[in-house]
Amino acid sequence: MEKLTLVKVGGKIVEEADTLKQLLEDFAQIEGHKVLVHGGGRSATKVAAQLGIESRMVDGRRITDAEMLKVVAMVYGGLVNKSIVAGLQALDVNALGLTGADMNLMRSEKRPVKEVDYGFVGDVKEVNAGLLADLIRRGVVPVLAPLTHDRKGHLLNTNADTIAGEAAKALAAHFDVTLMFCFEKKGVLRDEKDDESVIPTLDRGMFQQYVEEGIIQGGMIPKLENAFQAIDAGVKEVVITRASDIHKHTGTRVF
Amino acid sequence: MEKLTLVKVGGKIVEEADTLKQLLEDFAQIEGHKVLVHGGGRSATKVAAQLGIESRMVDGRRITDAEMLKVVAMVYGGLVNKSIVAGLQALDVNALGLTGADMNLMRSEKRPVKEVDYGFVGDVKEVNAGLLADLIRRGVVPVLAPLTHDRKGHLLNTNADTIAGEAAKALAAHFDVTLMFCFEKKGVLRDEKDDESVIPTLDRGMFQQYVEEGIIQGGMIPKLENAFQAIDAGVKEVVITRASDIHKHTGTRVF
Repeated sequence: MEKLTLVKVGGKIVEEADTLKQLLEDFAQIEGHKVLVHGGGRSATKVAAQLGIESRMVDGRRITDAEMLKVVAMVYGGLVNKSIVAGLQALDVNALGLTGADMNLMRSEKRPVKEVDYGFVGDVKEVNAGLLADLIRRGVVPVLAPLTHDRKGHLLNTNADTIAGEAAKALAAHFDVTLMFCFEKKGVLRDEKDDESVIPTLDRGMFQQYVEEGIIQGGMIPKLENAFQAIDAGVKEVVITRASDIHKHTGTRVF
Repeated sequence: MEKLTLVKVGGKIVEEADTLKQLLEDFAQIEGHKVLVHGGGRSATKVAAQLGIESRMVDGRRITDAEMLKVVAMVYGGLVNKSIVAGLQALDVNALGLTGADMNLMRSEKRPVKEVDYGFVGDVKEVNAGLLADLIRRGVVPVLAPLTHDRKGHLLNTNADTIAGEAAKALAAHFDVTLMFCFEKKGVLRDEKDDESVIPTLDRGMFQQYVEEGIIQGGMIPKLENAFQAIDAGVKEVVITRASDIHKHTGTRVF
């Protein structure tokens, strides 16, 4: 199978002109088939505030009422997505911006209300990657916004890490997929205080050992558990690296 | 060649939930390949006002400064386009929302400053419809927002009628294209005061005769001249009709 690199970048990098420009240049240098998944939360918060809409977060997740859904449709689907697409086209990358509604790429269901009512937030139920895979083979580079739809006419706000993981798993039927998550650090660190102490490779056995030894802890544990889930679902490798290193072969390789 | 119907609808219809729902139901009933091109000016004006940005128009065209460009990217590319896509998906229409930047569909150049500086407004220079035609053949229904790009990294605001005309001309190399413009009237009227006096067909000779006789006048003349230009460029027919009649075979047929 042909290789494909799927890069997930957080909002911060794509929301400032300077860092976005650098990211797109680095992304353009990745060889072979590729996909970019972006966030945009800071811009959504900013635009919402300008519109007099308050952003409410629970455990880092945005509460998306009807007014906030319009904001994220505008910011994720329009402003951020199309800025990236235009920027990549200028670098001769044949970008195509998509939400999960486009070509019914990702169908989700509105999250059931339990302790928290997240509002118009979707949990992914189905990914249709066949047409997307054909477009990729023809040189198209999809740029995915963190929005899905319920196939009943509603857009739903969906976490960008989830979009990246689900897209990677579905594309694994068509390509050898490397799923790359951009962090602020160079990779998973053996010593939090030493930026150079990157753990180069991690399999499940090593991961469990590091967790037992207290070397890997906190928020990195669920992130790596998600990475291993992607591996179990057919993704070839998950790479955790800095945004500025996405075109280098550095960072932590999870397999 | 296979048939394709390309429908251009103005902003008003797609910007209100009730009329949008009816339009999408009518559009879904059009048989065979189809494309939808939408405006969104009223929503752009509304969102801009909420953000404290004043809309300035010259001869019905929007002056698009850097802040207004962000608004139209959000409203046309995000809010309006993705609402339509999600609405069509609910009707089993495999919609794909696109701007001219996506897959480099439409490259434009920033309009030169003459008497008026329109700002970030683009005149279309190149349409790349090959990939689009393949997607259409595979059942995809493109939904085009009135935005293009300059291939230097900038989005440009572009008149939706122009987008529709240029897309129709480029797709005419791949399909027998019917270009349909939605008006408030049932078609081109012989008598402005009689809504039932629709002229069923118009060729260039009849058009010139009606103009000489003063039956066709005012803003309808440039619209019909554009229609004949599309015919000259290979579009099979141009239909001028009401939004609620797009799935019927009524209105004025220009050929």
